[in-house]
Amino acid sequence: MGRRILMLPGDHIGGEIVAEADKVLRAVDRCFGLGLDLDYGLIGGAALDVEGVPLPDSTLASARQSDAILLGAVGGPQWDGVARELRPERGLLKIRSELGLFGNLRPALLYPQLAGASSLKPEIVAGLDLLIVRELTGGIYFGEPRGVRTLENGEREGFNTDVYRESEIQRIAHLAFRLARQRDRRLCSVDKANVLEVTALWREVLESIAPSYPDVELTHLYVDNAAMQLVMAPKQFDVIVTGNLFGDILSDAAAMLTGSIGMLPSASLNEAGFGLYEPCHGSAPDISGQGRANPLATILSVAMMMRYTLAEPAVAIAIEAAVGQVLDAGLRTADICAQGQTAITTEAMGDAVVAAL
Amino acid sequence: MGRRILMLPGDHIGGEIVAEADKVLRAVDRCFGLGLDLDYGLIGGAALDVEGVPLPDSTLASARQSDAILLGAVGGPQWDGVARELRPERGLLKIRSELGLFGNLRPALLYPQLAGASSLKPEIVAGLDLLIVRELTGGIYFGEPRGVRTLENGEREGFNTDVYRESEIQRIAHLAFRLARQRDRRLCSVDKANVLEVTALWREVLESIAPSYPDVELTHLYVDNAAMQLVMAPKQFDVIVTGNLFGDILSDAAAMLTGSIGMLPSASLNEAGFGLYEPCHGSAPDISGQGRANPLATILSVAMMMRYTLAEPAVAIAIEAAVGQVLDAGLRTADICAQGQTAITTEAMGDAVVAAL
Ligand SMILES: CC(C)[C@H](C(=O)O)[C@@H](O)C(=O)O
Ligand SMILES: CC(C)[C@H](C(=O)O)[C@@H](O)C(=O)O
Repeated sequence: MGRRILMLPGDHIGGEIVAEADKVLRAVDRCFGLGLDLDYGLIGGAALDVEGVPLPDSTLASARQSDAILLGAVGGPQWDGVARELRPERGLLKIRSELGLFGNLRPALLYPQLAGASSLKPEIVAGLDLLIVRELTGGIYFGEPRGVRTLENGEREGFNTDVYRESEIQRIAHLAFRLARQRDRRLCSVDKANVLEVTALWREVLESIAPSYPDVELTHLYVDNAAMQLVMAPKQFDVIVTGNLFGDILSDAAAMLTGSIGMLPSASLNEAGFGLYEPCHGSAPDISGQGRANPLATILSVAMMMRYTLAEPAVAIAIEAAVGQVLDAGLRTADICAQGQTAITTEAMGDAVVAAL
Repeated sequence: MGRRILMLPGDHIGGEIVAEADKVLRAVDRCFGLGLDLDYGLIGGAALDVEGVPLPDSTLASARQSDAILLGAVGGPQWDGVARELRPERGLLKIRSELGLFGNLRPALLYPQLAGASSLKPEIVAGLDLLIVRELTGGIYFGEPRGVRTLENGEREGFNTDVYRESEIQRIAHLAFRLARQRDRRLCSVDKANVLEVTALWREVLESIAPSYPDVELTHLYVDNAAMQLVMAPKQFDVIVTGNLFGDILSDAAAMLTGSIGMLPSASLNEAGFGLYEPCHGSAPDISGQGRANPLATILSVAMMMRYTLAEPAVAIAIEAAVGQVLDAGLRTADICAQGQTAITTEAMGDAVVAAL
């Protein structure tokens, strides 16, 4: 019985980095006898150009039949002019929603080999290892009503709705508590409960669930304070759990604390543990086609896939160790290259990881 | 004809820092013959304890009769249990809304004397001088409908509405463009136009106004990217304009880049230029009553008041220069005290600024 992985390269550097992850998948398949089947599909601008929509039904059907998904990145300036509903990002939002991928795991991990890349002082970020758990299928991203209406006086008004029901908050809370248990057992929930009713309910639900995890310490921060604390003393955090919009903002800020966003993977899980794995970075149109992209975030996303969906922790560890070895050997793509180091290509980096396996 | 300043100390360190700003106001009044009248009023927890509401009608009436307001800070753990509508923060939100203080100016300025306090590397933040212009009376902070409802299946759902009409966006945009003109003429508007319709309208309105300010360069960033750029390379920014919620988050992150939030003032202006001035930091219950608070953010808020509402730029410059002198002389409160330096009290710091005037 093979395990089907749907590969969705997407746009721009998406294809280049997924090609390297493909090599890694085939390598671990051989070494560990995983019985993987790799299928390919279209998403984002690439799908729009061919099929007229950013998430074709055929892609969604393949996704539903697969055991896990690996995504590159979507978007690019050539689709700036297309109608809102057809934009590449819509494909991403739709696949998250259609597959119920409510749990977005975004680790911000500082590799000791790359400590110098951070814009923060070494003592502030050395050893940084935090995990942001972002709710991904609710909140203001998907809330109705939404749109632009014309008022009686003739002017237009834009509106969106931030909305969470208890059951949505409960499932992301349980996921976050379980993940905290596997780490340092400290969970910080981020909201704006002093102003927004929807996040006051969020805080209340988190509190109501806390007694089921007596071994995990739960704290709360307002989002403005959380943004400050991330800049000031990020190592105070273990796991952060928050809604869709705050998670979008804070996870990007946290990723950038490491200075090497080209290294950071992510997982988006549904209730059954099925998941979509993708790098935290975008499609980088500015360097696309030049062999300069860093494939390590995508390769590390494969490691997350092994851990969270395919239940192959030994394979995850092997991939992560191979990445560590490659970094130890001084191999660097342009984005993580310090002064005096020579950058290697996307392909050479992928090959080096395969060799290290 | 006297000019009435309403002083609202608020809670905890609010009283201590406003007392020092009072000294500075009286000193510049004497030196420059400003004809100031200082009135005092209650807001926040202090008002709640005495009058039963966080913004008494008497305070609002005094505010309407004053030429400018100086606020300390509101809030504290002793009011954690009070009903939502009575919380100290509600007083602040209500005074902003009642007085139409839509334009919130939050400078993030790194004082060269305090460069070491930042958690970022010196080369990343040296010379940092950016201004965040946050819309303060609209968006999801005030949008209706809002609340918590019970669904048919019995579970509760929280909801809030993010809403902006064209005229609201126009007035904050004009303010931001005018402020950019007085600085480096670069304005970056922050939104999430790829996901939220309300911010797509925001972007459209900003674009439509840009031709009236051909000397100002307008750019746009998505909020997640803006959070990253602030951490990675904050000096790329001159003026940032954004909505109420994103402004709350980004201005706190930006403030923390300097490492000395005890130094940062803010202004909240209405259409007539009337304003409420307050430090960016909070009421710091943990150090309240110990004479350890830094009064400089409040004193620098007085300088902003002189510049933006009282049209006394020479006085603003004099106050800012006095603060600079005090820092040059090595005087530091505990929050900005580096190793080997001795911290002075709130009062001693206020006195030093007055002496330097
Ligand atoms: C592309 C965009 C819609 C998306 C989001 O906001 O969720 C991205 O920023 C992300 O974080 O994955
Ligand atoms: C206290 C709170 C309601 C307030 C806000 O969110 O606006 C504060 O964080 C601020 O930024 O002035």
